Amino acid sequence: MAAKPIKLLNVEDLTICETTAEMITKARADGVELFFDRATAIKPCPIGEQSACCKHCSMGPCRMNTKSPYDRVGVCGATIDTIVARNFGRMVAAGTAAHTDHGMAMLELFRDVINGKVKDFSIKDPLKLFEIAESLDIVTEGRELKDVALDLYRELERTYVQVEGELPMMKRVPEKTLELWRKAGIVPRGAMREIMEMMHRTAMGVDQDYENIMLQISRTALADGWGGSMVSTDISDILFGTPAPLEIEIDMGVLKKDKVNIIVHGHEPILLEAMLLSAADPEIKEMAKDAGAKGINLVGMCCSGLDVMSRHGLPHAGNFSSTEAVLVTGAIDAMTVDIQCIKQDLKRVADFYDTPFITTNYRAKIEGALHIPLDEQNPLVCTDEIILKAIARFQTRKKPIQIPRKKTTGVHGFSYEYINYMLGGSFRGGYTPLNENIINGRIRGVAGVVGCTNPRSKHDYSHVELVKELIKNDVLVLQTGCSQMALAKAGLTGPDAAALAGDGLAEVCETVGMPPVLGLGACVDNSRILIAASEMVKTGGLGESLADLPAAGCAPEWMSEKAIAIGHYFVASGIYVVFGHTLPVTGGTRFEKLLFEGLEDLGFGKWAVADDPLEMARLMIAHIDKKRSQLGIDKGRERVLTDMTDRRSLDLTA
Amino acid sequence: MAAKPIKLLNVEDLTICETTAEMITKARADGVELFFDRATAIKPCPIGEQSACCKHCSMGPCRMNTKSPYDRVGVCGATIDTIVARNFGRMVAAGTAAHTDHGMAMLELFRDVINGKVKDFSIKDPLKLFEIAESLDIVTEGRELKDVALDLYRELERTYVQVEGELPMMKRVPEKTLELWRKAGIVPRGAMREIMEMMHRTAMGVDQDYENIMLQISRTALADGWGGSMVSTDISDILFGTPAPLEIEIDMGVLKKDKVNIIVHGHEPILLEAMLLSAADPEIKEMAKDAGAKGINLVGMCCSGLDVMSRHGLPHAGNFSSTEAVLVTGAIDAMTVDIQCIKQDLKRVADFYDTPFITTNYRAKIEGALHIPLDEQNPLVCTDEIILKAIARFQTRKKPIQIPRKKTTGVHGFSYEYINYMLGGSFRGGYTPLNENIINGRIRGVAGVVGCTNPRSKHDYSHVELVKELIKNDVLVLQTGCSQMALAKAGLTGPDAAALAGDGLAEVCETVGMPPVLGLGACVDNSRILIAASEMVKTGGLGESLADLPAAGCAPEWMSEKAIAIGHYFVASGIYVVFGHTLPVTGGTRFEKLLFEGLEDLGFGKWAVADDPLEMARLMIAHIDKKRSQLGIDKGRERVLTDMTDRRSLDLTA
Repeated sequence: MAAKPIKLLNVEDLTICETTAEMITKARADGVELFFDRATAIKPCPIGEQSACCKHCSMGPCRMNTKSPYDRVGVCGATIDTIVARNFGRMVAAGTAAHTDHGMAMLELFRDVINGKVKDFSIKDPLKLFEIAESLDIVTEGRELKDVALDLYRELERTYVQVEGELPMMKRVPEKTLELWRKAGIVPRGAMREIMEMMHRTAMGVDQDYENIMLQISRTALADGWGGSMVSTDISDILFGTPAPLEIEIDMGVLKKDKVNIIVHGHEPILLEAMLLSAADPEIKEMAKDAGAKGINLVGMCCSGLDVMSRHGLPHAGNFSSTEAVLVTGAIDAMTVDIQCIKQDLKRVADFYDTPFITTNYRAKIEGALHIPLDEQNPLVCTDEIILKAIARFQTRKKPIQIPRKKTTGVHGFSYEYINYMLGGSFRGGYTPLNENIINGRIRGVAGVVGCTNPRSKHDYSHVELVKELIKNDVLVLQTGCSQMALAKAGLTGPDAAALAGDGLAEVCETVGMPPVLGLGACVDNSRILIAASEMVKTGGLGESLADLPAAGCAPEWMSEKAIAIGHYFVASGIYVVFGHTLPVTGGTRFEKLLFEGLEDLGFGKWAVADDPLEMARLMIAHIDKKRSQLGIDKGRERVLTDMTDRRSLDLTA
Repeated sequence: MAAKPIKLLNVEDLTICETTAEMITKARADGVELFFDRATAIKPCPIGEQSACCKHCSMGPCRMNTKSPYDRVGVCGATIDTIVARNFGRMVAAGTAAHTDHGMAMLELFRDVINGKVKDFSIKDPLKLFEIAESLDIVTEGRELKDVALDLYRELERTYVQVEGELPMMKRVPEKTLELWRKAGIVPRGAMREIMEMMHRTAMGVDQDYENIMLQISRTALADGWGGSMVSTDISDILFGTPAPLEIEIDMGVLKKDKVNIIVHGHEPILLEAMLLSAADPEIKEMAKDAGAKGINLVGMCCSGLDVMSRHGLPHAGNFSSTEAVLVTGAIDAMTVDIQCIKQDLKRVADFYDTPFITTNYRAKIEGALHIPLDEQNPLVCTDEIILKAIARFQTRKKPIQIPRKKTTGVHGFSYEYINYMLGGSFRGGYTPLNENIINGRIRGVAGVVGCTNPRSKHDYSHVELVKELIKNDVLVLQTGCSQMALAKAGLTGPDAAALAGDGLAEVCETVGMPPVLGLGACVDNSRILIAASEMVKTGGLGESLADLPAAGCAPEWMSEKAIAIGHYFVASGIYVVFGHTLPVTGGTRFEKLLFEGLEDLGFGKWAVADDPLEMARLMIAHIDKKRSQLGIDKGRERVLTDMTDRRSLDLTA
């Protein structure tokens, strides 16, 4: 592939992550092109970027005028609103499919663990199994674990396959919120049915009323958040243990020159869990030693590891935007991947640094990569072989190695259940203390800051600046996914970060002994935030529906279609969601107005877009304050919005 | 919507359909813009047309160089092959979703008829119900219809929902073909699971090996042809009767100035079947008379009516490209639609001619259109109201009416079952006579000519010229969808058309008393062709797998994503498929080569594209001859390929 010469941007404009910056510089010296460089070179299609084109039939593709979106219609007569709604719907369908397919794989693993076909894993958290079963009205008293587990499997399978009726997890939704969905006719049936119907309705000549398309968009997204994603998280916890806070080392400094470094990147926990078993095998450890290594250094990246690390204390090397950069160290003896967010070009970069690059899932092969299929009934066959390949590469390392020094330590693994325990203590566990502190104004509100990193946005920058601003304004921040890694690298996931928080939030953090920034896990684990928010409503004092909560969400650097599905399941659940840098919607359309205003008028949450992290914070805090005011709890605290001067002084203290 | 002035093409360059041409001329005089005009004005996006852009994440949208497709990769590193395969896969997912969602609705209707919730319909073809049940190994002997029906419902529901195991209809696939699929790992599970996995695998960072993506493309498409579509057709037959040949009047001349003209347009039979019941209601007939009408003239368009017409002798006004034109007559007192291929702009054209335009399905609303929901448990509430609206409009007709005179009569409704009966007679029903005539060379082979019409292709032209060429060369033609209408209007669906056939085919047609062009139904009914082809294999003498048959398919003017799904399920089943005018694939890529060559090398069918109908015929006949030669039955007949001189002489005789 003969790439045209690319005009390179200054490294400091690309990322605030020091280790990634160091590796971009090294890559340039090595003559290796990274995706940061391509994001500069490839101008995004100005029409596609605004979602103003439709290629759903061969009468087109039709491109609409983004400057004057109502000046024409497509060949079939589709208006810009139909086209933008269709495109948005397909992104939600794809994102939902990703989480749902992931969840389905977890559920099948659960089934095979129960029926004994899978022997390498077992049920690690029977308590959670019983809790989930009870929450779905499955009788547990006096019954064997296996019987309850089988019933739970059958009930959860409905999340995917049922063709009518409400999703099982609807039992966990606050009543008023569920009532709204029922009235709108958007309570999801099975997730697979919603995906199918979304794809059908967005085909040529089917649904051509953007408000009607929006109903199916919401229904599909809810089937993700309260369906595919939620089941995935719950089953992961049941099988591998519910995360509880652990101190974790983060950033490329966790790599060891004298150990066999293996990066696991992707999304399904099974690969990393199996890698842990293989790496603990005495025979394999011996082989690593015989090869001259001081051990095997298993490291997670991207969402792989985000839940696993707090189950096992596993180090983590960084988020999506650093997966190429980590290869540039030359220190990676194998990178193995499963599904989602795996850049195709990793293969080329890995080749340059003689790093074996191994795919393991039949659904996600990469051309030219070595494929070692992971059979869940015999996973160690695959993971043993990966480690042996890594050991062999360690022994024959050719390229010079440059491992950045920086690593930070933070606390991660705040599951919904742990927050419950942490706030209330073991004798009076519950969300009452959180609600009380919100009502009395010490905590202004709760924000979810989540999502991807994106080379079209300065890497990590918006995540970090936004979260600093939020905690300074007494907003407790919940995190997942690549965003959580950004804050971890910036040192904000330790209890010390309370020093950067406003007085009220700092006081709560110090009392409870928690950081103001709570990492909850992988991007599929955003469902933990839904459950936490529902618990806040059920605990009382903060309204009757999710839409009443003084809460907001943000994905400052979103990239994947999964982010659109997640954003929309929060919006459909009642949450205000701000997306950074762009949203695939043509400006000035009625569909945009529906996203930004209309949905809120109907009782849902709503969308917004902002470029600057301080603007994101301003929007979120304003929304939180609006909700506080509607709840009548705005008296407790004075309204302080940070301006640029404050911000600069904050930067100095950071 | 202020449309820019459009440069208009000559009407004779837009269509060969005389009635449509007359109405385009009238529309221009009336100042009404039609989609033909927009197809001229809107230049297709040159990159999107070749499927060389990816908007599956917000790092892009990335546009590749279609002239030199390997000169760059997307921001994530996705190659042109990954991008093109992804886009193709999503089209297949959408097309499969359309048919599958349609089939699911039919299956739910079937269930509600069995359990007595739906009372306006009943099981019209119990014989077919028993036949299908037996083909799926359901015991029928000595059992009540209802019990067998319930078992059949449960078995067929698996087609959609099951998460593992083979689709029920795999029992109808020729053994060698099924063996190939098993070896490739592409036997479909439930259709909804395949759609979900296709959407997941085509998301950013998942499957990035075009050959691996192709496996899921095939699996998804097979879940359409042998799943969603096939169940839809079978259930329609069971509920409403299996079509048998009837003489039908076709084209706009079927409209009556003195009757209440109602167009039913879309795809699900239930709307039209319910309309028939309402129109037969003595009270409603009386109301029409009181309004001064000589009756109610119910007319199908597009796929609505294509199966229903041969069940009831219902007239049909034309295909997809004529649905705006028919409104221009001013004679339409109501147009009612359900799902798929309904141009959004029909609403505006209907408004201009004061025609009530009514949507009936919750999945397919059109902005501004009157929505009268059809409740399957009480369908006549909806259809009565539609007819009343039409009567009211009849009474207050304002615009001048111009009904084109032309109509033709043809025979339609050749179900797989009827072909069986027709060829063999009632005592020795079966495909043996067909196979024998293919083996002895009277019939050269069998072609499916199917699919949409498209304003980017001269309306009806390629369909008609291609079919003329095929029958002249002794190829028996099976038809569905809008293609069938094109040939019907051209007068080729009557027994007289045998005069245009080659000597061998003409002889068979005259002996059996059938036309050389057999209309099988709507586009979802292409599954009838799969079953007929399977029967040919099972009957013997023409090879062991579907790929061995001297057969080919073509969609000369394809438009919808459904066509891509259909095309690919034929290819994956072993059939050579030629598409007209365009295919969304970047030229010169390895993915294109896989479609055009590689799949055949693996034992599947393959794709081709051609612009000229004679070229399409040449490709199809060459393939048929190749298969004849491989079967060793090429001795019986001399190889004659028509050149342009022959063609002109054929035109003169037509």
